[in-house]
Amino acid sequence: MNMNTKNKEKAVVVFSGGQDSTTCLLWALKNYKEVIALSFDYGQRHKKELECAKDITDELNVEWHVLDMSLLNQLAPNSLTRTDIEVDKEAPGDGVPNSVVDGRNMLFLTFAAVFAKQRGITDIITGVSQSDFSGYPDCRDVFIKSLNTTLNLAMDYTFCVETPLMWIDKADTWKMADDLGGLELVREKTLTCYNGIMGEGCGTCPSCKLRKHGYNEFLTRYKQ
Amino acid sequence: MNMNTKNKEKAVVVFSGGQDSTTCLLWALKNYKEVIALSFDYGQRHKKELECAKDITDELNVEWHVLDMSLLNQLAPNSLTRTDIEVDKEAPGDGVPNSVVDGRNMLFLTFAAVFAKQRGITDIITGVSQSDFSGYPDCRDVFIKSLNTTLNLAMDYTFCVETPLMWIDKADTWKMADDLGGLELVREKTLTCYNGIMGEGCGTCPSCKLRKHGYNEFLTRYKQ
Repeated sequence: MNMNTKNKEKAVVVFSGGQDSTTCLLWALKNYKEVIALSFDYGQRHKKELECAKDITDELNVEWHVLDMSLLNQLAPNSLTRTDIEVDKEAPGDGVPNSVVDGRNMLFLTFAAVFAKQRGITDIITGVSQSDFSGYPDCRDVFIKSLNTTLNLAMDYTFCVETPLMWIDKADTWKMADDLGGLELVREKTLTCYNGIMGEGCGTCPSCKLRKHGYNEFLTRYKQ
Repeated sequence: MNMNTKNKEKAVVVFSGGQDSTTCLLWALKNYKEVIALSFDYGQRHKKELECAKDITDELNVEWHVLDMSLLNQLAPNSLTRTDIEVDKEAPGDGVPNSVVDGRNMLFLTFAAVFAKQRGITDIITGVSQSDFSGYPDCRDVFIKSLNTTLNLAMDYTFCVETPLMWIDKADTWKMADDLGGLELVREKTLTCYNGIMGEGCGTCPSCKLRKHGYNEFLTRYKQ
């Protein structure tokens, strides 16, 4: 890693232990002198998500914090947080999948901003992507820009919400991880599977299909 | 109360049991057919705040919910939530008083919005006032408007954040309570005192001074 590229001081990465946020963490480590990873415990279906997040931050030697967001579960019971609701078997079409928790990204990013300001940090990194937003309105660029303005006004502070994956697809997210020297880490240590299986996952849930499709596209696009 | 003025359907009122939010609750009861009051338990210095909120909603026969926001206390220890820090003895000047919790209103309003959408409600009422914002950036109108836009984008929903007190001072807030038939209720049952004394309060903390000054100004302006 070329240390000269670390031209920025400090960043907080919103970190789930999945493919996207792990790629963002690698991106942050390349660009910032100091990086803090922040995860949220909202009673997610798979506690293993937080275990993966811990293992990845241990391996990368990154400061890691978990915030308790159990309140979210009280407010918006749904398929990612309650075991008695089945997740959508198929990838969503135009509609929003039933795994959505309304306003979740907004709450996570706002808590991350409070946390960041407490430590004198302005830069907050999130792995949302408009190219691949699957119907979630709070993954859109227009939302992130509006949120950035609102956060600045709320706390009279100049936050900078960075979204390295906003305009790239899953194939180019794999490419980014590869360029950052983290392809194997992302392939083997991250968890995106709805059924809680690390790495390649169950292979049949919508998230695994998306991940595998993106990886194959990455190989086709860049490795042939 | 003229029932014909109730031309709107449903609203959620962000409700602390203080003068401002109680006045907003009275305003909501006049304008909406159905009103839900929402309080936040964030480990505030005085549990009596929530008791006052309960008593007022009981008296007005309003549905009341309390959300646990204890996480806020983990993130931003300060004088309103920790008993080992003394509050400012004097009213703040240009600076922000040390009782501020960064981003508090933003978090409360965002949770209120998630709660409201769950119940199919679009209108959220908050007692913030730019005329009397005491240095809190998240009481300014520009913040509320930006937040309203961000909430709409985050949840793909048309929220309407109403701020009946935005442009009026404490004297006119008393006038509004009086016009709504709630002057005695607000005088006797609300809690704004930093030292946790209901109604007229301790009389010496910045909040009591502000309240008393506003009340005297109300009497001078409208009752002489």
